[in-house]
Amino acid sequence: MRVQGKPCQTIWETPDATGLEVIDQRVLPHRFETVTLTTPEQTAEAIRTMVVRGAPLIGAVAGYGVYFAVNAASAHLDRIAQKAAEQLAAARPTAVNLRWAVEQMTARILAAPESAKCAVALMAAREIVAGELDRSRRIGEHGGTLIQTIAAQKSGPVNILTHCNAGWLATIDYGTATAPIYWAHDAGIPVHVWVDETRPRNQGAALTAFELGEHGIPHTVIADNAGGHLMQSGRVDLVIVGADRVAANGDTANKIGTYLKALAARDCGVPFYVALPSSTFDWSLPDGAGIPIENRSADEVRFIDGLGPTGPVTVRLVPETSPAENPAFDVTPARLITGFITEQGISSHPLRPS
Amino acid sequence: MRVQGKPCQTIWETPDATGLEVIDQRVLPHRFETVTLTTPEQTAEAIRTMVVRGAPLIGAVAGYGVYFAVNAASAHLDRIAQKAAEQLAAARPTAVNLRWAVEQMTARILAAPESAKCAVALMAAREIVAGELDRSRRIGEHGGTLIQTIAAQKSGPVNILTHCNAGWLATIDYGTATAPIYWAHDAGIPVHVWVDETRPRNQGAALTAFELGEHGIPHTVIADNAGGHLMQSGRVDLVIVGADRVAANGDTANKIGTYLKALAARDCGVPFYVALPSSTFDWSLPDGAGIPIENRSADEVRFIDGLGPTGPVTVRLVPETSPAENPAFDVTPARLITGFITEQGISSHPLRPS
Repeated sequence: MRVQGKPCQTIWETPDATGLEVIDQRVLPHRFETVTLTTPEQTAEAIRTMVVRGAPLIGAVAGYGVYFAVNAASAHLDRIAQKAAEQLAAARPTAVNLRWAVEQMTARILAAPESAKCAVALMAAREIVAGELDRSRRIGEHGGTLIQTIAAQKSGPVNILTHCNAGWLATIDYGTATAPIYWAHDAGIPVHVWVDETRPRNQGAALTAFELGEHGIPHTVIADNAGGHLMQSGRVDLVIVGADRVAANGDTANKIGTYLKALAARDCGVPFYVALPSSTFDWSLPDGAGIPIENRSADEVRFIDGLGPTGPVTVRLVPETSPAENPAFDVTPARLITGFITEQGISSHPLRPS
Repeated sequence: MRVQGKPCQTIWETPDATGLEVIDQRVLPHRFETVTLTTPEQTAEAIRTMVVRGAPLIGAVAGYGVYFAVNAASAHLDRIAQKAAEQLAAARPTAVNLRWAVEQMTARILAAPESAKCAVALMAAREIVAGELDRSRRIGEHGGTLIQTIAAQKSGPVNILTHCNAGWLATIDYGTATAPIYWAHDAGIPVHVWVDETRPRNQGAALTAFELGEHGIPHTVIADNAGGHLMQSGRVDLVIVGADRVAANGDTANKIGTYLKALAARDCGVPFYVALPSSTFDWSLPDGAGIPIENRSADEVRFIDGLGPTGPVTVRLVPETSPAENPAFDVTPARLITGFITEQGISSHPLRPS
């Protein structure tokens, strides 16, 4: 996607391939800065503190984290890779394809001869990136047809509501929930996106609004509270969200608040789709009851970052003595989901990767 | 209710009764300041800019606004009262008991002999205040029995979720949605309140958390997105919200996002109550379709106020070029509402004032 008019992906290797440059998503939309990662510890920390976030992106970055561990060692490479994989997977417990990515890495490294383990690790990390890129592109093509169909049945733009950032910033490029939107826009179909602010970390207001604006897509930021009213008023044609983990029955863990939008979509007859790479399906879980829900720091609710008159600043929103609680995800029951948009196509149930 | 350990109401007359002191709710919870109103223009502006807010409170304050107009004039008192009433009612179009209050005022003024109009206006404004106070107290007693019943059936505190601020700050004292909570707490029943932040103006995080904390009631601030997950997890026993206008069939306009919580409560089997004075019922509207929904400034979404390292500051949350939209209320269909808690008792349908 474009930033300041130029094509840009979310991560790129340093020239000697010993490091990874990533966009620091904590300071968007007010500043565009990058961070260089060269160790597994730095990589886990960047994932934990959400320098990088978004299920597909953190999987790809974690792949490089395992490679950095192997690259820096001279012996016991298998054990070192496995230890790094464990540390990286623990950085964000809800995202299943973070675990999937590091397991891909360790399987490839363990299977390689000793002298090739480092080269194989780099190759495996690059393949995860290439795979994510290809899956996002195909999610866009499949989901784009949904938008095309709605556009053919109405005048004016297709109004799509999305929650959080399942955009190109959450992937390598294109995004998951946004991929169909970029595909439709680039195909000349008029679209308009309702961007849920997505408290407490405001990934919608900060990241989705940023990337849609940079790519030239009409959008309007709304409070998370507003989506139900807009659906009641007939101003939402389609909801598309991402996912962090989907159980075998289709119960979907995604950013906190997704469940509320799914309820409103059902109540108002608005189609509700989840866009995701198939690696997000967790076949080990029969339903959503087993999905671990990450509780993040209460200070993410008590404080907020924004751009003040003299630069970026963190402000407190609640009384000094008031506690807060911050569950980061909720589980939307499969019964509320119209369909899943994956790289394989659109289906009403989870599909195993082909 | 108590502030810094001392009993406090939200408004009080100046010693000579020519002005009204009100708490400036825009700077809470970080500063406790008051503003003195002495003209109908100042009063309308204070209502419009939300120095005072909350349906019952703005009705009471508007009553004084009509009195100020009459008090400052020497002739044409009826016409002056009617003009002030119109201007005051237009300051917040969704709240029905703002209109109810100014109509009470003009009816009393028009019926009074010329020489008594000013004294009658002051008396009528005081009667609105006394009436609100009495209604809040009775809402607390009736709603408190609901909490008492739940407390008898479980161990540990009764967990009550509320949205926005229908607290004592929205009334003269006690509140509407919070009145049963204060009653239960003061009766020794253990309660814990989940306080929805209530974007975009954060009345929950700023005002409800402030007043509960000052009165010593256990509470936890949450993002608006979190309530559905807490209900799914069995951590909410009861939802109580306020209302700005309720149609004859029970469809309820309240702060944007209320509808989403009502959907989640229904989906999770959590009782959902609306607490309100009967003056909030609008018998002229058969259902919620006719309730005007106020659209407020997009900058309430794009910017937020908080306490920075050097004092209160306004920060921007969205990219400079991203537009926003800000519907201030939504309509919760009557089918999602378990019951109405009014000064007359608890009922499943709107009841005419006795």
